[in-house]
Amino acid sequence: MSVKVFLNEDEMPRQWYNLAADLPSPLQPPLGPDGNPVSPDQLSPVFPMNLIEQEVSPSRWIDIPQGVLDLLVRWRPSPLHRARHLEQALDTPAKIYYKNESVSPAGSHKPNTAVAQAWYNKEFGIKKLTTETGAGQWGSALSFACSLLGLECKVFMVRISFDQKPFRKIMMQAWGGHCVASPSEETAAGRDILANDPDTPGSLGIAISEAIEQAVTDTSGQTRYSLGSVLNHVLLHQTIIGLEAKKQLAKIGEQKVDVVIGCVGGGSNFAGLAFPFINDKINGAEIDIIPVEPASCPTLTRAPFAYDHGDVARMTPLLAMHTLGHRFIPPPIHAGGLRYHGMAPLVSQTVVEGLSAPRAIHQLDCYQSAILFARTEGIIAAPETSHAIAAVIQEANKAKEEAKEKTILFNLSGHGIMDLNGYDLFFKDVLTNYALPEEDIRQSLELIEQFPKPALNKTGKW
Amino acid sequence: MSVKVFLNEDEMPRQWYNLAADLPSPLQPPLGPDGNPVSPDQLSPVFPMNLIEQEVSPSRWIDIPQGVLDLLVRWRPSPLHRARHLEQALDTPAKIYYKNESVSPAGSHKPNTAVAQAWYNKEFGIKKLTTETGAGQWGSALSFACSLLGLECKVFMVRISFDQKPFRKIMMQAWGGHCVASPSEETAAGRDILANDPDTPGSLGIAISEAIEQAVTDTSGQTRYSLGSVLNHVLLHQTIIGLEAKKQLAKIGEQKVDVVIGCVGGGSNFAGLAFPFINDKINGAEIDIIPVEPASCPTLTRAPFAYDHGDVARMTPLLAMHTLGHRFIPPPIHAGGLRYHGMAPLVSQTVVEGLSAPRAIHQLDCYQSAILFARTEGIIAAPETSHAIAAVIQEANKAKEEAKEKTILFNLSGHGIMDLNGYDLFFKDVLTNYALPEEDIRQSLELIEQFPKPALNKTGKW
Repeated sequence: MSVKVFLNEDEMPRQWYNLAADLPSPLQPPLGPDGNPVSPDQLSPVFPMNLIEQEVSPSRWIDIPQGVLDLLVRWRPSPLHRARHLEQALDTPAKIYYKNESVSPAGSHKPNTAVAQAWYNKEFGIKKLTTETGAGQWGSALSFACSLLGLECKVFMVRISFDQKPFRKIMMQAWGGHCVASPSEETAAGRDILANDPDTPGSLGIAISEAIEQAVTDTSGQTRYSLGSVLNHVLLHQTIIGLEAKKQLAKIGEQKVDVVIGCVGGGSNFAGLAFPFINDKINGAEIDIIPVEPASCPTLTRAPFAYDHGDVARMTPLLAMHTLGHRFIPPPIHAGGLRYHGMAPLVSQTVVEGLSAPRAIHQLDCYQSAILFARTEGIIAAPETSHAIAAVIQEANKAKEEAKEKTILFNLSGHGIMDLNGYDLFFKDVLTNYALPEEDIRQSLELIEQFPKPALNKTGKW
Repeated sequence: MSVKVFLNEDEMPRQWYNLAADLPSPLQPPLGPDGNPVSPDQLSPVFPMNLIEQEVSPSRWIDIPQGVLDLLVRWRPSPLHRARHLEQALDTPAKIYYKNESVSPAGSHKPNTAVAQAWYNKEFGIKKLTTETGAGQWGSALSFACSLLGLECKVFMVRISFDQKPFRKIMMQAWGGHCVASPSEETAAGRDILANDPDTPGSLGIAISEAIEQAVTDTSGQTRYSLGSVLNHVLLHQTIIGLEAKKQLAKIGEQKVDVVIGCVGGGSNFAGLAFPFINDKINGAEIDIIPVEPASCPTLTRAPFAYDHGDVARMTPLLAMHTLGHRFIPPPIHAGGLRYHGMAPLVSQTVVEGLSAPRAIHQLDCYQSAILFARTEGIIAAPETSHAIAAVIQEANKAKEEAKEKTILFNLSGHGIMDLNGYDLFFKDVLTNYALPEEDIRQSLELIEQFPKPALNKTGKW
């Protein structure tokens, strides 16, 4: 009973797919403090120019350098599984497939872009990368990537996670990464915060500020900043997931996928799987594309498409995206990687264009779904990934009601072996679904009403 | 640059290899309390008869049932990697390959036998399995296997580990396993111990006693006990590792392996990789076969081949094996899976017969080696596995000194993502190598001097 499809190394895709080339409307540009589009030069103290070029590239296909392929091949191509045992448990006529990104050494899809970013930085002569991390998944992946290439890696980890999740810090250290709690005494931004509030738990916004500051103030010019999601080039690097999936489905004679599902926080794992299929959709294929977000952080389902900062401290340019407002603090759900106020501009635009249909799910449903998945398919999924699984089960049940033989594909973005605490609380019945009053969202959005509005606005919300 | 060799599902081995059929001297039988060989009937309250038959089978090749193949194929065949980046770091002329068993959902080789044992028990009409677990790796694997087959699973986990490693318990629970701290109030053995010493940290020996007791006292007759290493049928199930490796090496034109390495605690991951190559050695091939153990638990390198119990409470038959004495308590090294006083009889006999050449390594060398491996190959290895890596590095350095182009193969038996605490202590420089005075071993061995001696004795130690 075949349940798994491999590709050989020589079947690995040799190009990434850039959805920006195919969107019906042009991608809305990032804006600087003056309201004008940001120029590549303005970004050059933060990112190396080769990645900035990729960020703004209009090309549909971008060659993956051999050096990056040599890094990816350590764990890729990732297997495609058929979830026959979940299908049986659901008694559904649907066929369910998933890309298993949990097999990377860091346990998620994050290394796909981490190794690419580290490689481009090294090519550009950079010796050190700085970044921030919340729950630690991205900091681990970048430490891993830097380790393979001999780059220095500095990770600012949100203090409350630094204290609560000591194993992530050790993991980074095993790969030679240097992880400090944020806010730290190492940056002006960190010292300012600590002076006002020595006991602050920190935030992703503060950590981003510290990481960017340390990159741009290194007078050697050999340090840059690296981001694990949201930006175009990050999503581009992840498209290898969907491109592999297409080859694997073709290999077993699956002609047609009906539903593609991924969880969304910043948007990168969803984009990685879905964008090559959105290409098909743009070209006329009938496919439901479903980004799934936490009901307690409903960026795509309840927030407008607007210009906003990517961080709390307003250090980033204004990005045209679905946003709950840069000061929005999501409830403390366990899917830490999905607790982000904004969304990748490319993903946001697929929603505006009607190319994807987002869905929000509460965390108890997600854990329940993940338990069923663990007990049928055998893999303990990350809390983030459980959102995709919950939507898959909804779709499989719908197929049963409709008696339709659908083919569903989703991204198993990571394993939950370092996130078992959330499962424990679920078993102990102490987790809750967080209602999010409309008023909270409205208040948070007031802060961004003075920003320019995107030219593209099909939702009519603004 | 090819670094990874997959097999397709249809290339997976269809038979296990039974080394017992090829050993130069017959395997020494287990003995009962009366000093006579144990009969299959005597074992039948503990194990199902189909596994007992396998335990004593004289057949060289044993068919893997289709039902077991269907379970194994969820994560197998496991990839074979070439460690080119470690080779480069060592500047060695040796080629280094490893089987990556860390890709199983439980993170180690243990599920290879867990799914087989669960399947055979289910075939035999058994509804529930009991077992013990120390650090939690085996309890996790059996919970996973029982979950896939709808069997109940009860795990007695050594109390000190139960308290120190709460995540393992949650992992078992995610797979529906029921894990309790041992000693427990659920068995007579547990209650006895608790009455005498309510604060006992527990031991593997006590946990084994409880698990066996709960299996044999279930009057429904539908409960059996399951063991994760040591026994012949357990090692048999692991030989799929070495059989796959041979196919993978053949696929890339590697004609000859010179050195095969695995870490040893009970012996199963080493046996799984090495036994098919020991078959070649018996047939005339020149191969160095190296089981690697902790210097602080030197069962193969400093203890005799003798009859001894497999557990502290003397509930098991007497097994002919290398043993430090059933009361031996190894120092608290972090490779919990290698802290066992005995050794699989089959592995022990390869040492007696001169078919393998054991080596002992201290834990600081092992951690140092694992760090180099993580930073070159990208995988954070289990503390147990780090023993194999340390020996690989010794052999690669030796090849460099001798300027020989050797081919080295080892078993990456598991990842260390749930064992990062040991890495942390290593980084903090608070770990130590434990010297083990000859006197400690001698005292422990006095306890077993009254037992019968194996007929096979080529070492002259007894």
